[in-house]
Amino acid sequence: MSPITFIFTGGTIDSCYDPEKCTPVPHQQSILPLFIEKRLHLAPDIDFKYIQLCAKDSRDLLDSDREELVQLLQEDPNERCIITHGTFTLFKTARFLQDRLPKLEKRIILTGAMVPIDGFYHSDGPFNLGYSLGISERVDNGIWVCIRGKCYPPSADVPLHG
Amino acid sequence: MSPITFIFTGGTIDSCYDPEKCTPVPHQQSILPLFIEKRLHLAPDIDFKYIQLCAKDSRDLLDSDREELVQLLQEDPNERCIITHGTFTLFKTARFLQDRLPKLEKRIILTGAMVPIDGFYHSDGPFNLGYSLGISERVDNGIWVCIRGKCYPPSADVPLHG
Amino acid sequence: MSPITFIFTGGTIDSCYDPEKCTPVPHQQSILPLFIEKRLHLAPDIDFKYIQLCAKDSRDLLDSDREELVQLLQEDPNERCIITHGTFTLFKTARFLQDRLPKLEKRIILTGAMVPIDGFYHSDGPFNLGYSLGISERVDNGIWVCIRGKCYPPSADVPLHG
Amino acid sequence: MSPITFIFTGGTIDSCYDPEKCTPVPHQQSILPLFIEKRLHLAPDIDFKYIQLCAKDSRDLLDSDREELVQLLQEDPNERCIITHGTFTLFKTARFLQDRLPKLEKRIILTGAMVPIDGFYHSDGPFNLGYSLGISERVDNGIWVCIRGKCYPPSADVPLHG
Repeated sequence: MSPITFIFTGGTIDSCYDPEKCTPVPHQQSILPLFIEKRLHLAPDIDFKYIQLCAKDSRDLLDSDREELVQLLQEDPNERCIITHGTFTLFKTARFLQDRLPKLEKRIILTGAMVPIDGFYHSDGPFNLGYSLGISERVDNGIWVCIRGKCYPPSADVPLHG
Repeated sequence: MSPITFIFTGGTIDSCYDPEKCTPVPHQQSILPLFIEKRLHLAPDIDFKYIQLCAKDSRDLLDSDREELVQLLQEDPNERCIITHGTFTLFKTARFLQDRLPKLEKRIILTGAMVPIDGFYHSDGPFNLGYSLGISERVDNGIWVCIRGKCYPPSADVPLHG
Repeated sequence: MSPITFIFTGGTIDSCYDPEKCTPVPHQQSILPLFIEKRLHLAPDIDFKYIQLCAKDSRDLLDSDREELVQLLQEDPNERCIITHGTFTLFKTARFLQDRLPKLEKRIILTGAMVPIDGFYHSDGPFNLGYSLGISERVDNGIWVCIRGKCYPPSADVPLHG
Repeated sequence: MSPITFIFTGGTIDSCYDPEKCTPVPHQQSILPLFIEKRLHLAPDIDFKYIQLCAKDSRDLLDSDREELVQLLQEDPNERCIITHGTFTLFKTARFLQDRLPKLEKRIILTGAMVPIDGFYHSDGPFNLGYSLGISERVDNGIWVCIRGKCYPPSADVPLHG
């Protein structure tokens, strides 16, 4: 299997519940590598690379963050990349990447979750990560959003909140 | 999206922990429909059909159970099917289906988990279900085993225990 | 064992996470009876009675709600009562009850949690309920707040949030 | 609050699920200190001391282990002790301690769980620990078994399995 790069940007999928703020806040350092390595009983020859871009609620992502993401994707040698991201601007970032990287010969998947993985029994995150990995194997080159059990082009712009 | 049939056969993925027996036992009625409908925040136009074949530890599956599975797959009109199954004989059943249905024009995915979904915080089941769904969208017709983050042909016969 | 009355008022302990609001909201109908009966493996002769007073974030509790609570406590025949309540005004309600029921010959315990029981792996709620039950067996008559592993008089007024 | 000694002996309460053995096995090093310190939002002045005696399924406990426990209890200066223990021989160990320490001027609580704390969403362990702590504050000196929401003398010998 070709190596896959994970890029973490924060978002609900990579948050923990803060009892003071009564809401999830992104882990400064992603818990996803530990989750992926310890909990999924993966085959030993799977080759993942992890990059932490930032740790933000996606409503706080700046276009400068998205530019950094563009750069990372241009420089990274792997043909597949899964980006974990908050749900509020998931499609916005996807369209940004589409505009800036229209001819990139890679399969780029953006995904996230409505409920955090860490500490929540009912998270959709593990399913979404699995779905994203499955899609990443055979999807056409380009930018894709994997959420809600479907693989969308950036233009779909599905409202994920209310 | 074309409709997808889920067939439940039991196995760890669909078990709950029995404190008397100190081990997971399969739910007589699958918890997966509730899990899928309530926990995954799926798109409303996803169309799943659920069939309970049996509720067994896969070491207790008989070839007569596997014959019933063959029949179900022949009769079911959907082009995609995800079968949840115990890990002990996952590849054995896959080879059985391969032998009996060598030319079936469908995408059949077998999956399972090392840790139950219901009641366990660290289950690999949600990831495996997501991965299976993702693979099912673009894989070639045939029988496939989706486990450990990989999509195997039945002949791979990977030992999942010890 | 003498029968015990549980009174549910809402609060984080009896909430579920709302992915739209990104915060826990109280269950309209308490999940605590199910939690208590199914998850705790209690002795068959334990006799609990359940009353739902309201289902509110404790910052939204009105003095009229607290008056209703006073009435319930006066009318209920059981000598022991455990009240589940939000953490924001836990001590405020305790002082209210103390003022209005200074001579009640009962053991009244108020408790709550920083993290919901339902859907959260890291809830302090189950521990707090167990602690409250343990304290209720031998504590003096009066109003008590059981939280953070300690049993406080209403006057302690410990700040539970930041 | 007077300091409390925890003694860990293993048992289901302090186990994790082993997907190879399909059953929980005791953690070699107890997860309870981390659970207690991180998850329970305890008051900062609570003073717990932790001792690991062994890490065994209670069916494998030897009388020599129980003798070590007797010695620990005799030497430990704290007046309160909570012992976590497997459920299969919980009352047997309680009676052993009763026989060997009939006049110890301490409050000794034995507790356990039917379902492990670590990795299980439905564990009775957190409730049992809270209950044990609550009971330990006001119970008479002696040996007590706190399980199923009740505080039993060793002679009760309640069958916890089947």
